[in-house]
Amino acid sequence: MKLSQGVEWALHCCHVLSQLPEGSALTLAQLAELYAATAPYLAKHLQALSRDGVVEAVSGPNGGYRLARPAADISVLEVVEAIEGRSAAFRCAEIRQRGPAALPAAEYVLPCAIAAAMYAAEAAWREVLANRSIADLALTTCERAPKSAAATRTWLEDSARRRTPRGAGKQS
Amino acid sequence: MKLSQGVEWALHCCHVLSQLPEGSALTLAQLAELYAATAPYLAKHLQALSRDGVVEAVSGPNGGYRLARPAADISVLEVVEAIEGRSAAFRCAEIRQRGPAALPAAEYVLPCAIAAAMYAAEAAWREVLANRSIADLALTTCERAPKSAAATRTWLEDSARRRTPRGAGKQS
Repeated sequence: MKLSQGVEWALHCCHVLSQLPEGSALTLAQLAELYAATAPYLAKHLQALSRDGVVEAVSGPNGGYRLARPAADISVLEVVEAIEGRSAAFRCAEIRQRGPAALPAAEYVLPCAIAAAMYAAEAAWREVLANRSIADLALTTCERAPKSAAATRTWLEDSARRRTPRGAGKQS
Repeated sequence: MKLSQGVEWALHCCHVLSQLPEGSALTLAQLAELYAATAPYLAKHLQALSRDGVVEAVSGPNGGYRLARPAADISVLEVVEAIEGRSAAFRCAEIRQRGPAALPAAEYVLPCAIAAAMYAAEAAWREVLANRSIADLALTTCERAPKSAAATRTWLEDSARRRTPRGAGKQS
């Protein structure tokens, strides 16, 4: 059982987008620079997140990606499912209905005990991820690696300054 | 995220082995017949289960596979891990240590908040499977599909009779 690497990238992108000041966005190029990743690779995951309403693309000179909702309202599960889909990891092939001891299908009303056990485990997995938000991740990052959280914020501020043309926003 | 089909096969094999009377075993051919599967395919999974001490191969005229321990002492997790291995589904690539905002490795003592959330979910998944035994599966099968459980037991008895040569075990 393996989760795709895209899950980690998508969670990091959402995490950093949660660090932006209200009303601002990060371009694909900024995200790629921050994570030393290629833009097309990140674009694939951002498109999946956008399709599922986790992030949104904003057009215009200060456009880019931003979270589609407050970080506290986006669960880790939503991000994981945007990348991995919602299919169960365990797929019951109804082995119990095979072979000489099998009965007519009508005798198998309830799910197989084996599938039920596997689904219960997946439900527990989903519950943990559903109860953790992108805002929680940011909080935990601040606690676990405060200097790293500060360095990211500094980079975001510098990057926003580099992006804004000199004099833009000033009124004469 | 997808579990291999072998997990379902291995769990069904362990489940049926738990239904055998004390001291008996099922041959690969019997298991393959019961599940209308090919012997080489099942053999691959039984070897993995044997390697992990879940089942054991018994030689001799009444030989075959049997559970290596009482069914109540074998967790569903052990069977799943025998087939899938013990690696985490989420593999942290330390994305936080990439790019221009990264700090020296010494600043990242604790696991990344993202990895910690994903590992917590996997721990919950494992806990459910660790707390369910092969004996529990048999009990649940009896409750959920009692006729199916009875049909399997009948098949096992018939198959054991077919296997024992006429007159074997009788004393003159």
